[in-house]
Amino acid sequence: MQKPLILVTNDDGITAPGLRALVRYMKDLGDVIVVAPDSPQSGMGHAITLDNTLYSKRMTIDQINGADEEYSCSGTPADCVKLALQELLKRKPDICISGINHGSNSSINVIYSGTMSAAIEAGIEGIPSIGFSLLDYSWDADFEPAKESIQKIVSEALKNGIPKGVVFNVNIPKLKKNELKGIKICRQARANWKEKFDKRTNPMGKDYYWLTGEFELLDHGEDTDEWALTNGYVSVVPTQFDLTAHHVIQELNTWDLEVMNNGEG
Amino acid sequence: MQKPLILVTNDDGITAPGLRALVRYMKDLGDVIVVAPDSPQSGMGHAITLDNTLYSKRMTIDQINGADEEYSCSGTPADCVKLALQELLKRKPDICISGINHGSNSSINVIYSGTMSAAIEAGIEGIPSIGFSLLDYSWDADFEPAKESIQKIVSEALKNGIPKGVVFNVNIPKLKKNELKGIKICRQARANWKEKFDKRTNPMGKDYYWLTGEFELLDHGEDTDEWALTNGYVSVVPTQFDLTAHHVIQELNTWDLEVMNNGEG
Repeated sequence: MQKPLILVTNDDGITAPGLRALVRYMKDLGDVIVVAPDSPQSGMGHAITLDNTLYSKRMTIDQINGADEEYSCSGTPADCVKLALQELLKRKPDICISGINHGSNSSINVIYSGTMSAAIEAGIEGIPSIGFSLLDYSWDADFEPAKESIQKIVSEALKNGIPKGVVFNVNIPKLKKNELKGIKICRQARANWKEKFDKRTNPMGKDYYWLTGEFELLDHGEDTDEWALTNGYVSVVPTQFDLTAHHVIQELNTWDLEVMNNGEG
Repeated sequence: MQKPLILVTNDDGITAPGLRALVRYMKDLGDVIVVAPDSPQSGMGHAITLDNTLYSKRMTIDQINGADEEYSCSGTPADCVKLALQELLKRKPDICISGINHGSNSSINVIYSGTMSAAIEAGIEGIPSIGFSLLDYSWDADFEPAKESIQKIVSEALKNGIPKGVVFNVNIPKLKKNELKGIKICRQARANWKEKFDKRTNPMGKDYYWLTGEFELLDHGEDTDEWALTNGYVSVVPTQFDLTAHHVIQELNTWDLEVMNNGEG
């Protein structure tokens, strides 16, 4: 039987330890091809490169236990997936795995996440797809405690398929293996960032800003990803790219949206 | 009575004709403050500037019929909204309007849209918010036929409020005023882009790519934005930033996600 073909990408760049760990974990499950950004792309959201050129380079990062093929790409995470699917891969991958991100993509962070934009791009193109993030920003984060959960989720997704129009946003708490309580299916917690701009003056006398902020949880449900993570669980949020708020369509149809002098007037 | 305070932004940049038209139309409805990118940001998705500085500049573009205040910002559309709300505006705006985009943001394009990322950012911060796009990419597009529909939708949103957690994605067909049939509440059509990468060789002998593609509609429902636009209607899609696919949670809870040797084992 042919082994599953696994496309691996991320937003922290092709040399990030989180991606190198993910490649090792995926090698146990199938053939692995990496197409990842040549530089960090955090906070890129679902950006794509429309008005600039893209470069791609075949390379080998880990001689031992590395991917079957690896390519860096000068674009965003979404660009990497597009280029992989249309140009670099010889056949359609069975699954696309993005990460492991250094840092959380839970709750509202999904909106800003380059890791998840790569996963969503693959989902739009009809490929089962999962983004993984560890709640540890440091470059020397320990990914090993997450290994079994990651392999379990990917194996189940390969076995069952992921529902159409859905990709998984998986976040993993920063805990030791024996502290992890299990895996929970969750909804995205309501939250936002309370921004603070740190205003400074540059050596030429011109004001500039650094964006900083504090995470503000607005949701105390026990079925959310934030609850799961705080309580020691790996959170799996099924995430969709049909953004329609179907539940308000009926209400909006009661609004007065008649326009004068139009084609029916 | 105090006039509504309207924050206007976009992704084509502060000098774009679509934004200048929007400022004129919003001046009929309230006080207008513009905070918009100093350069085009199309395809930026929901990118934010995490590892770089932001600059902002007070300016006046149109002496007559211009905004009450205008600021350019060196960041992305989402950065503009964050900076406006936290630093530049003296009070919370009553509504945030993004656009008018030169080109469509219907169906799956919402995911890549800088115009909509600005609107969604304001929505996350609890501000009623609408993105407008005209299906005409040209810089000298005629926005006048859209004026009445835009003013009608914004007036109704100011009167009724927009449901919590929802922002409007409004697209306008490229038609004469008397050809516009009216305004329709729609759902986002299922669609994707069939990418083609145009591969070339640079003068130094290195291969590079241009991203190009064809829009592929996968949805033939008559309640979609694509149907409305093709049939002469302005489409209004209520768009949400809770990306949870609530309808699959029950099914996913039947998966075997037990992990060995964990905290409960």
